[in-house]
Amino acid sequence: MRLGVIFILVVGVVCSAAVDQKPSRKSSWTGKLLVVPMDGSHWTGVKAVAEEMGRRGHTVIVVIPEISVLLGPGQHYITKMFSVKYDQKSLNKVLNERVLEVTNPGNSFLSTVIRIVSNLRRMFNTMAATSESLFQDKELIESLRNENFDAVLTDPVLPMGAILAYNLSVPAVYLLRGMACGLDATATTCPNPSSYIPRFHTRNTDRMSFGERVMNMLMSILEQTVCKFMYRSFEEMIFNFLQRDVSMTEILRTGAVWLMRYDFTLEFPKPLMPNMQFIGGINCGVRNPLTKEVEEFVNGSGEHGIVVFSLGSLVSSMPKEKADIFFKAFSMIPQRVLWRYTGEIPNNVPENVKLMKWLPQNDLLGHPKARAFITHGGTHGIYEGICHGVPMVMLPLFGDQADNVHRVATRGVGVILSIHDITVETLLDALNSVINNSSYKQKMQKLSAIHNDRPIQPLDLAVFWTEFVMRHKGADHLRPAAHELNWLQYHSLDVIGFMLLIVLIVTLAMLKCCSLCWRRCCRKTQKRKED
Amino acid sequence: MRLGVIFILVVGVVCSAAVDQKPSRKSSWTGKLLVVPMDGSHWTGVKAVAEEMGRRGHTVIVVIPEISVLLGPGQHYITKMFSVKYDQKSLNKVLNERVLEVTNPGNSFLSTVIRIVSNLRRMFNTMAATSESLFQDKELIESLRNENFDAVLTDPVLPMGAILAYNLSVPAVYLLRGMACGLDATATTCPNPSSYIPRFHTRNTDRMSFGERVMNMLMSILEQTVCKFMYRSFEEMIFNFLQRDVSMTEILRTGAVWLMRYDFTLEFPKPLMPNMQFIGGINCGVRNPLTKEVEEFVNGSGEHGIVVFSLGSLVSSMPKEKADIFFKAFSMIPQRVLWRYTGEIPNNVPENVKLMKWLPQNDLLGHPKARAFITHGGTHGIYEGICHGVPMVMLPLFGDQADNVHRVATRGVGVILSIHDITVETLLDALNSVINNSSYKQKMQKLSAIHNDRPIQPLDLAVFWTEFVMRHKGADHLRPAAHELNWLQYHSLDVIGFMLLIVLIVTLAMLKCCSLCWRRCCRKTQKRKED
Repeated sequence: MRLGVIFILVVGVVCSAAVDQKPSRKSSWTGKLLVVPMDGSHWTGVKAVAEEMGRRGHTVIVVIPEISVLLGPGQHYITKMFSVKYDQKSLNKVLNERVLEVTNPGNSFLSTVIRIVSNLRRMFNTMAATSESLFQDKELIESLRNENFDAVLTDPVLPMGAILAYNLSVPAVYLLRGMACGLDATATTCPNPSSYIPRFHTRNTDRMSFGERVMNMLMSILEQTVCKFMYRSFEEMIFNFLQRDVSMTEILRTGAVWLMRYDFTLEFPKPLMPNMQFIGGINCGVRNPLTKEVEEFVNGSGEHGIVVFSLGSLVSSMPKEKADIFFKAFSMIPQRVLWRYTGEIPNNVPENVKLMKWLPQNDLLGHPKARAFITHGGTHGIYEGICHGVPMVMLPLFGDQADNVHRVATRGVGVILSIHDITVETLLDALNSVINNSSYKQKMQKLSAIHNDRPIQPLDLAVFWTEFVMRHKGADHLRPAAHELNWLQYHSLDVIGFMLLIVLIVTLAMLKCCSLCWRRCCRKTQKRKED
Repeated sequence: MRLGVIFILVVGVVCSAAVDQKPSRKSSWTGKLLVVPMDGSHWTGVKAVAEEMGRRGHTVIVVIPEISVLLGPGQHYITKMFSVKYDQKSLNKVLNERVLEVTNPGNSFLSTVIRIVSNLRRMFNTMAATSESLFQDKELIESLRNENFDAVLTDPVLPMGAILAYNLSVPAVYLLRGMACGLDATATTCPNPSSYIPRFHTRNTDRMSFGERVMNMLMSILEQTVCKFMYRSFEEMIFNFLQRDVSMTEILRTGAVWLMRYDFTLEFPKPLMPNMQFIGGINCGVRNPLTKEVEEFVNGSGEHGIVVFSLGSLVSSMPKEKADIFFKAFSMIPQRVLWRYTGEIPNNVPENVKLMKWLPQNDLLGHPKARAFITHGGTHGIYEGICHGVPMVMLPLFGDQADNVHRVATRGVGVILSIHDITVETLLDALNSVINNSSYKQKMQKLSAIHNDRPIQPLDLAVFWTEFVMRHKGADHLRPAAHELNWLQYHSLDVIGFMLLIVLIVTLAMLKCCSLCWRRCCRKTQKRKED
């Protein structure tokens, strides 16, 4: 089944504004922080930290391209812009093409893969073009150099900030969800055995059958090639900017602290490194009150409560036939529904459905009347659901969403549906399960309690480690010596080879001795016989 | 050079009492905690947590043998004792034999190793005897079972508590410095590559030459055998107690959270697992005021300050000829010296030296006049030195001390001396270096600043995770699926074997095809020629 024409805009940010109203304490020591963010949903966590750092009295300068989807000025930081060689229209085109994979699910597997890879490549080329524009802005680069920053905060998925930090010789703090092809594991020398750590896009869990482990290892091998292909646009640019040959991994390795935007209520437990800190749910800590109108709608839902529905900020409208399925299903449930919907409003909107151009998603999920959350499975939304203990119906669209929702389903706190095959019945069944089957709510409450039970809030932890890197000019004491070993040495293959050689030599020497002794004995016996 | 007769007592605790005066907040939720501690210096951290948990309103029951060196009642917990089959005299004998290795350094390498191993074996047999006594006390075990504890806090080096937790089906929190033979890494499935993680007793750092890496791997292999040998006494006992065959590793694997008594200012950075938390320096956070007499002596040192001298609580007195070296050296320095000294007081004690039976070590090191710390290199003392930024002269005696002091020396914040070869000159040189060479002080201050700069104090972190395990009946979400894989599966050797087999079959099939095609071609050509 086809989705038809969907106008899609990659924005994906939900509630970072909520953080703005949190009361903060001033830091006793203040410094200068350079922030080089990535556009789209990646901006959420970075913006929260940038604002909080500014609020605590640090000088925070955020460098962004003049054309972007979400990036922009804030209350507590200074914005510096650089011009780029593309316009808003062509950026939107790239983003629209990026999600064509959702709209054409009926094509063959091979053509889908080719399209995904080619779209990704276009995305990476755009990122490279953005980076190149920054690096060519000599005036801006020099002004940044003269600021003598104490640290750079950046999302390394767009390696522009990491490369800039390397060039300015300023320690870098990375804030990310994870990197394609396990690049984060490679760059931190973090062990990443494929036997129980599922690779992206495999939909494996941490408990795999033999076949799944084979697939997981094949994906591990494939990833390496894909990564080289993806970051190829950057290699030449790095050389031009730094005037020497430095690989992407070498640059990423200089990251002092890695703030990972996940925790183990969603991810499967796996090895870590000392310079990794976990700030999953950084976006759901602080809530704002609902507007009077929304509050009245929500409270009017009575004992049945509400369903929050958003396919992120990705899908700005939905084809009529698809939307009709949702409208029909919603008209048959006793709950009230708040739907992030930016398309043309049809005539047949049921009374219990409220369409909104922007949804205060985190605040709605945090309302005691929230009963279910229909989501596309972006990590921000999922963590908001976990944070507030709301079971989910999940409609993954693309990217890491299929893996995310699979992790949620594994915990027994959500149901996965396919946006392509969805019907009124399957949607009703799914909503009925997560709302009325107490198992989902109980498991979700348990998961939520674990997620929220921590010694320090994720935003405070992120700020602490950013300030730590600024105060101590890095975090060298957390940098493993493994960075100085090559692959053979790291796995001790040279040592094992040497030991086997010794064993071989000793065995051969012993055999030789035995054979000599034997020959002598034989000779003596023969001689005696001859005598 | 021989040390002669040293009367040694394994106690090693310095300042855990200091924690007793910290103001605490009551926990909003309280539960029941069973504490099964290990004697000696291992008791320090566990006692601090037990006291703090009691102070916060939890019911804390500490189970200890009636005969021990250090274990005893506290202000904020209930103590339950069980009888053992040895008396204080025989326990002291075991401890004295344990440290004979220090007193006889001149023997051959082989005899030293044999003595160390045989002493360790005796130590482990004593630990097994203690455990057996507890497990045979059916009445006590039943009373503990009826208490329905929420968690067990224990040091797994003495696995008595871990086995008891397993038997009572109560989640366990482990608090430890590390385990012999990398058992902690095995039990947590934490990657532990020998290529950059130095093994104990090798004195390697994280940057090793090829030869050192060979030695490190040999030690890794040797450790496994030693471990089996060490814990042999426990295997039968476990079977008798649990009435089924469970290995030590299987029991240790049930540990919900591992509170590791170190951090990366001392240890070299290495992989971790999500259920490990780092509480290095748990003992140096809180200080008590000095007595008037000691305060006067310290303040009287003027600009030169003081030297704090303690070989832990291990060495209760020192042979005269060795003590004379220290007295002579101390008489030649401008600093005042406070020395933990429990032997007979000689006539020639210099005026600038104060001998004390018990030293408020942590409070003295935290005094602004502290200039140097002469220590045997136990971790508690080292962390107190780092915490307060005092450079060290280190005289390792036995156990992990040689490795500890090596780590300190690597950071450039201390000088190692041998207690066997020490002379007035070497001692004076070392003291002069750490006091007057500003490099030591500067590096130590930097290390200290890093060590003390953390988002949450180690005692609070230890209490948080103990309470977490109590609240959530464990920490299953942090348990890696690697526990369910065998060695072959974990390293994907079965998958690699399978893939190689496929490659082999495909290659052979292709070769076969080629050869068939070739033969056909040849035949045709031959036929044509014949025609």
